[in-house]
Amino acid sequence: MTNDALRHDGRAPDQLRDIRITRNWLDHAEGSVLVEFGRTRVLCAASFTEGVPRWLKGQGTGWVTSEYEMLPRSTNTRSDREARKGKVGGRTHEISRLIGRSLRAVIDTKALGENTIVLDCDVLQADGGTRTASITGAYVALVDAIADAKARKLIPAKAEPLTGSVAAVSVGIIDGRPVLDLDYPEDSTAGTDMNVVMTGTGEFIEVQGTAEGKPFDRAELDALLDIAAKGIVDLTALQQKALAETARERVL
Amino acid sequence: MTNDALRHDGRAPDQLRDIRITRNWLDHAEGSVLVEFGRTRVLCAASFTEGVPRWLKGQGTGWVTSEYEMLPRSTNTRSDREARKGKVGGRTHEISRLIGRSLRAVIDTKALGENTIVLDCDVLQADGGTRTASITGAYVALVDAIADAKARKLIPAKAEPLTGSVAAVSVGIIDGRPVLDLDYPEDSTAGTDMNVVMTGTGEFIEVQGTAEGKPFDRAELDALLDIAAKGIVDLTALQQKALAETARERVL
Amino acid sequence: MTNDALRHDGRAPDQLRDIRITRNWLDHAEGSVLVEFGRTRVLCAASFTEGVPRWLKGQGTGWVTSEYEMLPRSTNTRSDREARKGKVGGRTHEISRLIGRSLRAVIDTKALGENTIVLDCDVLQADGGTRTASITGAYVALVDAIADAKARKLIPAKAEPLTGSVAAVSVGIIDGRPVLDLDYPEDSTAGTDMNVVMTGTGEFIEVQGTAEGKPFDRAELDALLDIAAKGIVDLTALQQKALAETARERVL
Amino acid sequence: MTNDALRHDGRAPDQLRDIRITRNWLDHAEGSVLVEFGRTRVLCAASFTEGVPRWLKGQGTGWVTSEYEMLPRSTNTRSDREARKGKVGGRTHEISRLIGRSLRAVIDTKALGENTIVLDCDVLQADGGTRTASITGAYVALVDAIADAKARKLIPAKAEPLTGSVAAVSVGIIDGRPVLDLDYPEDSTAGTDMNVVMTGTGEFIEVQGTAEGKPFDRAELDALLDIAAKGIVDLTALQQKALAETARERVL
Amino acid sequence: MTNDALRHDGRAPDQLRDIRITRNWLDHAEGSVLVEFGRTRVLCAASFTEGVPRWLKGQGTGWVTSEYEMLPRSTNTRSDREARKGKVGGRTHEISRLIGRSLRAVIDTKALGENTIVLDCDVLQADGGTRTASITGAYVALVDAIADAKARKLIPAKAEPLTGSVAAVSVGIIDGRPVLDLDYPEDSTAGTDMNVVMTGTGEFIEVQGTAEGKPFDRAELDALLDIAAKGIVDLTALQQKALAETARERVL
Amino acid sequence: MTNDALRHDGRAPDQLRDIRITRNWLDHAEGSVLVEFGRTRVLCAASFTEGVPRWLKGQGTGWVTSEYEMLPRSTNTRSDREARKGKVGGRTHEISRLIGRSLRAVIDTKALGENTIVLDCDVLQADGGTRTASITGAYVALVDAIADAKARKLIPAKAEPLTGSVAAVSVGIIDGRPVLDLDYPEDSTAGTDMNVVMTGTGEFIEVQGTAEGKPFDRAELDALLDIAAKGIVDLTALQQKALAETARERVL
Repeated sequence: MTNDALRHDGRAPDQLRDIRITRNWLDHAEGSVLVEFGRTRVLCAASFTEGVPRWLKGQGTGWVTSEYEMLPRSTNTRSDREARKGKVGGRTHEISRLIGRSLRAVIDTKALGENTIVLDCDVLQADGGTRTASITGAYVALVDAIADAKARKLIPAKAEPLTGSVAAVSVGIIDGRPVLDLDYPEDSTAGTDMNVVMTGTGEFIEVQGTAEGKPFDRAELDALLDIAAKGIVDLTALQQKALAETARERVL
Repeated sequence: MTNDALRHDGRAPDQLRDIRITRNWLDHAEGSVLVEFGRTRVLCAASFTEGVPRWLKGQGTGWVTSEYEMLPRSTNTRSDREARKGKVGGRTHEISRLIGRSLRAVIDTKALGENTIVLDCDVLQADGGTRTASITGAYVALVDAIADAKARKLIPAKAEPLTGSVAAVSVGIIDGRPVLDLDYPEDSTAGTDMNVVMTGTGEFIEVQGTAEGKPFDRAELDALLDIAAKGIVDLTALQQKALAETARERVL
Repeated sequence: MTNDALRHDGRAPDQLRDIRITRNWLDHAEGSVLVEFGRTRVLCAASFTEGVPRWLKGQGTGWVTSEYEMLPRSTNTRSDREARKGKVGGRTHEISRLIGRSLRAVIDTKALGENTIVLDCDVLQADGGTRTASITGAYVALVDAIADAKARKLIPAKAEPLTGSVAAVSVGIIDGRPVLDLDYPEDSTAGTDMNVVMTGTGEFIEVQGTAEGKPFDRAELDALLDIAAKGIVDLTALQQKALAETARERVL
Repeated sequence: MTNDALRHDGRAPDQLRDIRITRNWLDHAEGSVLVEFGRTRVLCAASFTEGVPRWLKGQGTGWVTSEYEMLPRSTNTRSDREARKGKVGGRTHEISRLIGRSLRAVIDTKALGENTIVLDCDVLQADGGTRTASITGAYVALVDAIADAKARKLIPAKAEPLTGSVAAVSVGIIDGRPVLDLDYPEDSTAGTDMNVVMTGTGEFIEVQGTAEGKPFDRAELDALLDIAAKGIVDLTALQQKALAETARERVL
Repeated sequence: MTNDALRHDGRAPDQLRDIRITRNWLDHAEGSVLVEFGRTRVLCAASFTEGVPRWLKGQGTGWVTSEYEMLPRSTNTRSDREARKGKVGGRTHEISRLIGRSLRAVIDTKALGENTIVLDCDVLQADGGTRTASITGAYVALVDAIADAKARKLIPAKAEPLTGSVAAVSVGIIDGRPVLDLDYPEDSTAGTDMNVVMTGTGEFIEVQGTAEGKPFDRAELDALLDIAAKGIVDLTALQQKALAETARERVL
Repeated sequence: MTNDALRHDGRAPDQLRDIRITRNWLDHAEGSVLVEFGRTRVLCAASFTEGVPRWLKGQGTGWVTSEYEMLPRSTNTRSDREARKGKVGGRTHEISRLIGRSLRAVIDTKALGENTIVLDCDVLQADGGTRTASITGAYVALVDAIADAKARKLIPAKAEPLTGSVAAVSVGIIDGRPVLDLDYPEDSTAGTDMNVVMTGTGEFIEVQGTAEGKPFDRAELDALLDIAAKGIVDLTALQQKALAETARERVL
């Protein structure tokens, strides 16, 4: 296979899947997004509540956190519910923490005041890249929740809790070639797998690369980072486009 | 208020909300339905697996069961995840068991062979009647899963595990008047609340009535059962209509 | 079998088992009853405590709740303890909630003041009808606990938290005939099984009917409700008789 | 106070409370005893099952174990259920293990064959000495369960799994004087508290002494052991008397 | 074997293993000891915190408690972590409670003020006697933590929370002969096993003896207590010696 | 501060802390290492067992996994035990999974045969870099465990399960300058924190970088990777030196 051959679904190496961002998919949540990266479909709900966890009280700062979970039949074969097993698995914890950290990186918690925003990211259908779709969609829900809080005067109109935008994408090496935004079939065969979280201005928030098969060298790492940066530019544009549109009215 | 006044959303006392049944909303599941009763929105996924739980092995009969759960922000204010709390709540257990019993009532487990179908009902948005929407939607997903199993020759083409159809609806007494298919604002104020599960041929599978405020008498009970029977006729027609249409192709 | 044939234990179709209600079976509890429906034996303890759960504080209303559990060897074969399994099962939750709701239906929580009464119903021996025996016995323990609270001036002497009496009974269809108060052998073979909770004045608090085998029609449902009403009349009389007697002194 | 003054309930220092041992209190269990040490009331159920835990399989030996638990309102103020808390407390574990060890000390597991007997000791009412009452009562239930297993030919008629009898009693130092079989008011004030498990032939199986207040010396320890030995003689006689009587028929 | 034969490791019957007590093995803890009884190696950390558990608040008394745990590979074959199993085992609870009780026996909680000291005893390597090593080492860590609290003026310089010293040792009967401080090979073969906790002045705090094989008589019990008392004298001397030396500086 | 100023403990920016690797610190484990990165002290135990988890059976391949945990007083203030909380925290899961992946990257599971090696990494004292110390130490324990398995002929003498060596180090940006192997005071103030796992031949196994404060750019990322590579060279040399020495004999 030559480096310019197309991928199994016809995409170019540096091409995202079809990305759809549907705002206000829910009526109750202060912000909500159904985000789709191809067949991967994640429902991101932002819940704004006044007050902060006990360990933060009285410090004048807010809190942003996230919980990620997969529906039992989001995957090809059914998985047991974590609630039934009575414990949250390591992978679920890991991804929840990653999403929370990524969003906090663009939040000025002082400007948020003593308020909490929880981002629930529930994977309705999984086809690779659920954590990167979650971060990308949750950012949009977060923007809407903050706007809603301003409209309801829960935070001052001139406060600006957001310090930038954030998006995330996966990259990997398949058959020796770096590719962007892997779907599940690609993810299963990639020798190296990396998730990159960046700001809309091209800086890194989180880089997590893992050699699934053989270790990778510095040149491969550099190529992966290049292609990820390109994908983040595209995702940032799609987020801005979605936010520029008039969203469906929530039925309160 | 007179008995013929319309309800807060303009419905007649014996009128269902807008019901939508979208088949094959998921690609992986053998059967899946996004069912909407007004703003209540439940994702029902039917997972077919060969084999049965240990306690059923070797008896030549299959098993149908269900797990119900609400997404944390399906409701007006966010609830904690049961997985994080490490235990499944009483209400969740109760409804999961009800859905399972209701579907088993129209299943011939001998004809199913030693196979298991799990119906996952995840409430994406709650506005009253989540358990009745779950049963009504899960039945359609179950029909599709059985057809899929026949197509894949996992059960014989001439076996007929389904012995009938099943649907469910809530009824209640509001301001002394029986009404059908309560939404959340109605449910919160109803003096008596009843969930009725019936077959497509008008027989009872389950009747659960609870006096939320003052106890009810036999005449009220009779009126509630009458109106429920009418609702089941309508829901059965909607189920048949959905099943008669050509569903979207799953992308396997 | 003709409709007027006797049952396996010689009872008429509408006849209760031998019912025994022993008050003050315990010394510590504010109210306690060992209730026996034939061989079914449940220990109901009413614990009165000042104060209410956090979510009720400051509203001037009390709380009544219940916890039901079966001893591991109350049944024919030993069951594992829920404490050892680390979680409460669905059936246990369901019945605990039913008992609590049933008793709250005859409680004026305002008149109770900010006090809590917990009804612990522990099944010492199970032979069918443990939930209905629990409700019937717990009511008597509740009456005693309220009298005790008045005697100790924890609630005003002229307050009347009780708005009526409550009892419960099971009914079912066996060989096409409605029968009252099923024991375990009957319960295992009944085609339809219904638990009915009613006030002493003949109104419904809860109706839960389930088709175990084939669905039931409206005529069967009506017949079951008729026979249940008769049983509640008898149980109410037995409760009143027990309460009219002088109970054993508690050794405090 | 002189050494010969009577105790708060009129007992002599070396006198047991009224002990009652009621066999076959339950119908289902292979052996069952309601044992009462004064107001302490424990239901001991022996469940015989064929087979052994996995780690014992194929070794030709049986297993005897125990589970102890207190009902929530067995005590003066209500305790939360361990099942609801989702974990078994340290004290419960400790006593369950003690009962199991004590009974195994008089069992020849080879003679028992690959069978398991579980002794469930559920405290219905607690007034001190629940663990010693449990051991004393459980022994009698164990004897009955073994006789039942022989009658049903689950173990050979000439096998003798029992190598002796076992009973247990508490002793303590109150106001400088050793006393036998403490009730709760005594237990709360005792400076030293000891539980002694012995065979019917006067040998020790377990000795557990704890200085609750100030440490105790060797002379006090010796006096406690003397008085315990006297109590075990009396309890052994009561066990033999109960076993010599004809027990109530179980209704199977 | 004659009574004067040496043990498998060459010790006399009443001889301790090599005991090492290393103070300030940790830098963070207010007191810490690596205690070694031969190859048994336990890390005891004393954590001093201001305040007491909720149930003790406002009574002017402090609290001392302990948590014991074994590292998974402290033993000959690896055990699963209790954290992964999601529950603390019965043996772990039992030993934690024993250590806590033993240390509280030499603490004047009034003099401690409303402060808490937790003794964490983590078994790094187990070769018999881990609970007795834990108590013996934890006492030394406790002394250091109290001295540290005085130095930091968290308790008054002239307060004396310690009322004495405490040490513990195991004794057992092997081949009919009482021996002191059993290592694992001895412990596995001992017919009777006893743990004795005593003060430095020779009084008993706790005596726990168990017949592992056949029951033991009073003469054997007496012999075991004699030899234990001798071991406690030796351990007390070693504790005093360790405390008299200048400990390594903690790097704070 | 200029770029060539020394760090708070006098180290050069690219200088490791004092590293100590003590092999066979335990007697029971097939391989064990007490690894110290300055004051960070981790006990790594490698447990070799025949057989593999169920999901791997019959495939002829082995398994290497890891469990990481911190002792409650390894840190400056005491943390609750995860076993007591009944659940493993997200951070613990995350690090356990990272260690397991890192070691599997240098294992040929075919050559290991159907055997399992568990690496338990228990943090005795934490001062930053516990995960990197764990990986670095666990590798040495793994080498010893494999040598032991060969010596005991549990794997063939000529099999070579190890495909290379692995070490890990943290890097971060402090005051705009990249520094190597951060201790806790540095870690708390670093703007960016990265953990790098590499082979002894300089290839990447895992790269995890997180912007704690402000996002970082590509130039900073490059500088961090450079300094990490230097640190891995030094750690690899220390591992080889430790493995070249004769280790203490285990007392089996």
